[in-house]
Formats: sequence, structure tokens, C-alpha cells
Amino acid sequence: MANDIKARDSADQVAPLRPLYLEDLAVGQEFTSRSYPLDEAAIIAFARQYDPQPFHIDPEAAKDTFFQGLAASGWQTMAITMRLLTESLPIGSGLIGAGAEIGWPQPTRPGDALHTVARVLEITPSRSKPDRGFVTVHTQTLNQRGEVLQNVTTRILTFRRPA
Amino acid sequence: MANDIKARDSADQVAPLRPLYLEDLAVGQEFTSRSYPLDEAAIIAFARQYDPQPFHIDPEAAKDTFFQGLAASGWQTMAITMRLLTESLPIGSGLIGAGAEIGWPQPTRPGDALHTVARVLEITPSRSKPDRGFVTVHTQTLNQRGEVLQNVTTRILTFRRPA
Repeated sequence: MANDIKARDSADQVAPLRPLYLEDLAVGQEFTSRSYPLDEAAIIAFARQYDPQPFHIDPEAAKDTFFQGLAASGWQTMAITMRLLTESLPIGSGLIGAGAEIGWPQPTRPGDALHTVARVLEITPSRSKPDRGFVTVHTQTLNQRGEVLQNVTTRILTFRRPA
Repeated sequence: MANDIKARDSADQVAPLRPLYLEDLAVGQEFTSRSYPLDEAAIIAFARQYDPQPFHIDPEAAKDTFFQGLAASGWQTMAITMRLLTESLPIGSGLIGAGAEIGWPQPTRPGDALHTVARVLEITPSRSKPDRGFVTVHTQTLNQRGEVLQNVTTRILTFRRPA
């Protein structure tokens, strides 16, 4: 779709994306991000601050855990996903999330490079407020081998183009 | 409940909490965290890295947005919630999340001090693997005025006490 190409441009940071408003969105539109590399040091730094568990901060201790090696906090995978969405899903009024449902089919590992593919699932105009609606977006976060690390479905409060 | 008192001790970082395994958990148990203060600089620093939208990084520009002033990224509220859970919900095998459902009834603001109250909703032993089960936990994140900033329901993979 047309906006696909524009979204992929963001990888090269060539031009800002054309802002999209409620009336520009359609079910099935897809937006693909650039690639975001993640190393061991970045995994440990995030986890020390927000999720200091052995399998996220200590490569040696992680070997004897459920993860059998260092794994990123799922909330880091989510935070990076958000960063990539701000770059690749150009909703004019911003990405204002009302709520989200998240699953992690497999852990993010040191050396993974993440990218996102966001797809519009549903568009629901507000009944009481004609200037806005909710757009439901499903985003997959994948690594360089195409393995799905995270699925998140988000309801985004979206406005019509200002008059 | 008994574990309430232990959980609250973590605020003073006096003693490590007694680790809990699948057989120690019961529906209705509650775990309360210490308080985590959040200022404008911390909100902007997180958002610059993971959610660089005007209403999260620019106090002036934020005034003319939906949020009518600087608001923390919901993913920062979630990351802080995770940090507080690692300190206050002492599951022996760690907090291994399979998935989560999140909602933000109102934004987190500069000057808010956050704490969490986690409550065990459901315990489902695995049918095929007798050493483990899933524990569903509902966590509210509240500010210093008792206003709910976030609701998250998480399914946590939990193991029985090692033999």
C-alpha cells in the first residue's frame, strides 16, 4: 500500500512521513520500521533499572534459569517497539494508547536486531465525539531471522484532520 | 494476609522477602510496593529514548495536546511497575511473564510518586508439567493521591519449590 513505501523511508531518515489522520487510515494498512540492534550491554542496562532479575542482568546466572541464557526484559522489547512505532506509524495526533495486550512467544537475545510490522485491524469512529475514533493496531516485533519476539495489540485514540 | 507485611518491609530494604513458590500462592494475596518518585527530567529522559512524542518530551508543546501538559509514556509507567514488582512480589522462580493486558485510566505526571498493589487473581497448575503453573496477577499502579494510573493483568509462569 502507498503508505508502506513512505514508512520504509524512515529507515534512512530521509524525509518525515506524511501525517495520517483518522480518515486516512484503512483496515489492512501496514507500516514497517527500520532495524534496531540490541547488544548485551543494552539489555543489562535496561534491566538493572527496570527489571533486575538474574536472567536479565547476569549472563552466567542466566544459564541456569528458565531462559537458559541472557534474555531481554519483555518491557525492553516493548519500549523499543514503541520507539520504532513513533518512527514508522505517522499518526498526526500522536500515538495515544488507551490500552494494550501483549504476548512474548520467545525472548529477545543479545545480538538481535528488532524491527516492527504494524497493521491496522479495526477502525471505530466515536459515536459521541465526531472529531475522533479508536484505531486498533496489531504490531509484530521480529528479529533478523524473522522470528516473532512480541505481539502487541493496541487501541490508539486518533483524531480527524484539524479543520 | 501474612505476606502483606513482608512485602511492605521491602520499602525499607531491611530484609529480603521469603521466596514464594506455586504452592505458597493463594487467590486474594496482596503485595504492596514502596513508593517511586518521578520528576520531569526522568519523564523526558525515558521518552527521548523510547517514546519521543511532544506530549512526553516537551513541557511547552505538551500544553496544546490531548494531555494538556507533560505526561509520562505509558511504557515508563509500566517499566516502573515492573521494577516495583521485582521488589515486592517475591516469586522464587522469578517473574516470567507470558503475556499482559494493560490500560491507563489517566496519565502519570511530573511529581507523581508511584506504588503498586498486586493481587493474585487465579492459579492454574499445568496439566502436562506437574512442576509448574500459571498465576494471573492484577496490578494497580497508583500515585500519592491514590489515583489509579495503570491496570495490568499478567500471566506469570511459576514453578513449585525445587525438591
